[in-house]
Amino acid sequence: MSQIPYKIYLTEEEMPKAWYNLRADMKNKPAPLLNPGTHEPMKAEELAGVFCEELVKQELDNTTPYFDIPEEILGFYKMYRPSPLVRAYCLEKKLGTPAKIYYKFEGNNTSGSHKLNSAIAQAYYAKKQGLKGVTTETGAGQWGTALSMACAYLGLDCKVYMVKVSYEQKPFRREVMRTYGASVTPSPSMETEVGKKILAEHPGTTGSLGCAISEAVEVATTTEGYRYVLGSVLNQVLLHQSIIGLETKAALDKYGVKPDIIIGCAGGGSNLGGLIAPFMGQKLRGEADYRIIAVEPASCPSLTRGKYAYDFCDTGMVCPLAKMYTLGSGFIPAPNHAGGLRYHGMSSVLSQLYDDGLMEATSVKQTDVFEAAETFARVEGILPAPESSHAIKVAIDEALKCKETGEEKTIVFGLTGTGYFDMVAYEKFHDGQMTDYIPTDEELQASFDKLPKMD
Amino acid sequence: MSQIPYKIYLTEEEMPKAWYNLRADMKNKPAPLLNPGTHEPMKAEELAGVFCEELVKQELDNTTPYFDIPEEILGFYKMYRPSPLVRAYCLEKKLGTPAKIYYKFEGNNTSGSHKLNSAIAQAYYAKKQGLKGVTTETGAGQWGTALSMACAYLGLDCKVYMVKVSYEQKPFRREVMRTYGASVTPSPSMETEVGKKILAEHPGTTGSLGCAISEAVEVATTTEGYRYVLGSVLNQVLLHQSIIGLETKAALDKYGVKPDIIIGCAGGGSNLGGLIAPFMGQKLRGEADYRIIAVEPASCPSLTRGKYAYDFCDTGMVCPLAKMYTLGSGFIPAPNHAGGLRYHGMSSVLSQLYDDGLMEATSVKQTDVFEAAETFARVEGILPAPESSHAIKVAIDEALKCKETGEEKTIVFGLTGTGYFDMVAYEKFHDGQMTDYIPTDEELQASFDKLPKMD
Repeated sequence: MSQIPYKIYLTEEEMPKAWYNLRADMKNKPAPLLNPGTHEPMKAEELAGVFCEELVKQELDNTTPYFDIPEEILGFYKMYRPSPLVRAYCLEKKLGTPAKIYYKFEGNNTSGSHKLNSAIAQAYYAKKQGLKGVTTETGAGQWGTALSMACAYLGLDCKVYMVKVSYEQKPFRREVMRTYGASVTPSPSMETEVGKKILAEHPGTTGSLGCAISEAVEVATTTEGYRYVLGSVLNQVLLHQSIIGLETKAALDKYGVKPDIIIGCAGGGSNLGGLIAPFMGQKLRGEADYRIIAVEPASCPSLTRGKYAYDFCDTGMVCPLAKMYTLGSGFIPAPNHAGGLRYHGMSSVLSQLYDDGLMEATSVKQTDVFEAAETFARVEGILPAPESSHAIKVAIDEALKCKETGEEKTIVFGLTGTGYFDMVAYEKFHDGQMTDYIPTDEELQASFDKLPKMD
Repeated sequence: MSQIPYKIYLTEEEMPKAWYNLRADMKNKPAPLLNPGTHEPMKAEELAGVFCEELVKQELDNTTPYFDIPEEILGFYKMYRPSPLVRAYCLEKKLGTPAKIYYKFEGNNTSGSHKLNSAIAQAYYAKKQGLKGVTTETGAGQWGTALSMACAYLGLDCKVYMVKVSYEQKPFRREVMRTYGASVTPSPSMETEVGKKILAEHPGTTGSLGCAISEAVEVATTTEGYRYVLGSVLNQVLLHQSIIGLETKAALDKYGVKPDIIIGCAGGGSNLGGLIAPFMGQKLRGEADYRIIAVEPASCPSLTRGKYAYDFCDTGMVCPLAKMYTLGSGFIPAPNHAGGLRYHGMSSVLSQLYDDGLMEATSVKQTDVFEAAETFARVEGILPAPESSHAIKVAIDEALKCKETGEEKTIVFGLTGTGYFDMVAYEKFHDGQMTDYIPTDEELQASFDKLPKMD
């Protein structure tokens, strides 16, 4: 019997004290954000109207390898971190695989996901800058919940624009946000110019993430003492999320374990970028090699079927342009229960690494994902979020390959969160009402045709 | 700054390897279960038709102080235990109290509560006896979820009778159970004689816990290879739940901390009985003294306003009689969102200890409980279950008393679970629609008048 415990917890002393900035080790740096009007790289002063100053610095800094985590954030982290690195003994047994499977479980906090790691950082810098509050958008509600928790802790106002259809159909996430004192507004609303305009043009619309972003940005830039914050895609978010990978690596190192394969689900890239950061750093510096696999839904396959091009981050086209693997900012993925993976583009950092051949990507179908989720839940206990279950699916596939070959590979995957607020999706799966949708080449081409012309 | 970490986790080696049977140290033993027909103490062979043999032994054994936890259960415990003992630094700061507050958090597993500790034990003994499956009832669904998880892990069939109104209004808990492979039947159903009878007499009834118990017991006793299991009240359940208190004590001992006050919410007594077990043991043996406080809802005040008498455990009056503090088996508590605390009676063990003056009891109002829950959530992050929040309310009250007196008391309370499936209640609280109901003396007297006559 192995000496590795079921769950490896770092002590407070062993917890990372600095975030790791993967960009510092990248030879090919991620492409800069561009001003949507001039197509010139965004300057710090331009970004400072939207984001807090300290976060603008983090966003633009491609050279500093480590950023000390401020004391107050370390204190907050101690309330729910370190997250456990779990040895999936029961899943291994169930699969009958010689592979050794570990997962880093980020769901043991009320936001239910890893989003809190960056929410507290962004809220902290807003507070430090003397701001009154922050605005953001949320779809399914995980990011909004995380930000509400962080703002409640720091005594900061939090205005969340929630896609109207989610606001109405997912009242529970909304109530969690209200419990933490956030104001939650269904988007589009009559509170903003952009909201009014959209409602005039499309009466009765149930909203979209792109619209909610536009409203949140408008409120942030027109209200004294407010800034806008975002839960994924941006470099600063990946920086904060590096805590996931740093803890994972410290826990593995503690027991002398070296992974062969590292797997994460990928929507905007916040979880995957955080999980792989220190491992990819070693790879970039030539110190170690790993297979790194991004898993995305077949319904929204930005890495596997997208174009690497400059595109808008939002459908309202008010945000800067980012170079990324994208399906086009106008791409509307088919209804898919992995709400957090329905973003049309991918973090510029991950896009560059993928383009450089430093990581793999694969896409999986929704029904296969839920089947893997249920298998996992029954043996490992945890009820996984649909997003996280994309990684589970591929981890199981890789473990079954090991069963065929007899290889004792070590597989690490990110279990980003819990599925307590996703039971409607599980219900559809149980009732055989879940469908798979894969966009056609024609649909994607039509979307690519609308990418901004960069000449 | 204190050296006590935010969260104390025991290592696998430090985890308890045996359950502690508090009854062994009780001078006045809890009164025995009685046959409802003869009023004679229930014999092992009578109970064996309903419960697994090993569990019958545990139920009746008032003398053996420790029961070794079987290897397979220890393995399961390692998947989600040890649960953290958390130092509530942020709550202390918020309250400005010199008190030191700790809470044992049992919510970090998919069942969302401590119920899993006994579910795995009961399912294990059923499996060991070669049974095909188990039956149970569930109201809000926490116990049913826990049992489903345990049965999925062991490959045991699990039939859950869920109060019809909950089945329809709380579909998410139902889907969690289905994810773990349980069959969930709305009760009353046409599957049982008692269900048919009730439906004939009360067409359109939305069911009750008492009816669901009767259906589950009927199915267990009339189906080859099945037994009935229960999530609270019974001695065996308190035995399994002693893991909570044993871990708590080991974690405190590790840092040389001696509590002054121990607080737990009390419905049937499973959490409170488990949390206080080793501390009460010391108290009974004269080795230490603690204030121990049971907290119950003002709407269902079995300890603070009930009678200490023999009563039926179910409203259907098919189960044995138990001597307990009770409001009468016909007492229907007013709608109260702490579903897990709406039981009319209290564990015989806790009832005897309370009657002997070894612990205190207090009742709190629902709106005060939610106010405490929200305060707690905002500073400690965790979204507490309504049940658990009863303990939070009293812990805060005691900490504020310390603020007045300047005393640096150490307060430990049980945080039994999370409130993710209770957002309807939080919504009512946010919208000012939550009401408090306290039964009148006349109502209680009318219920007491129907207690069984014991000659």
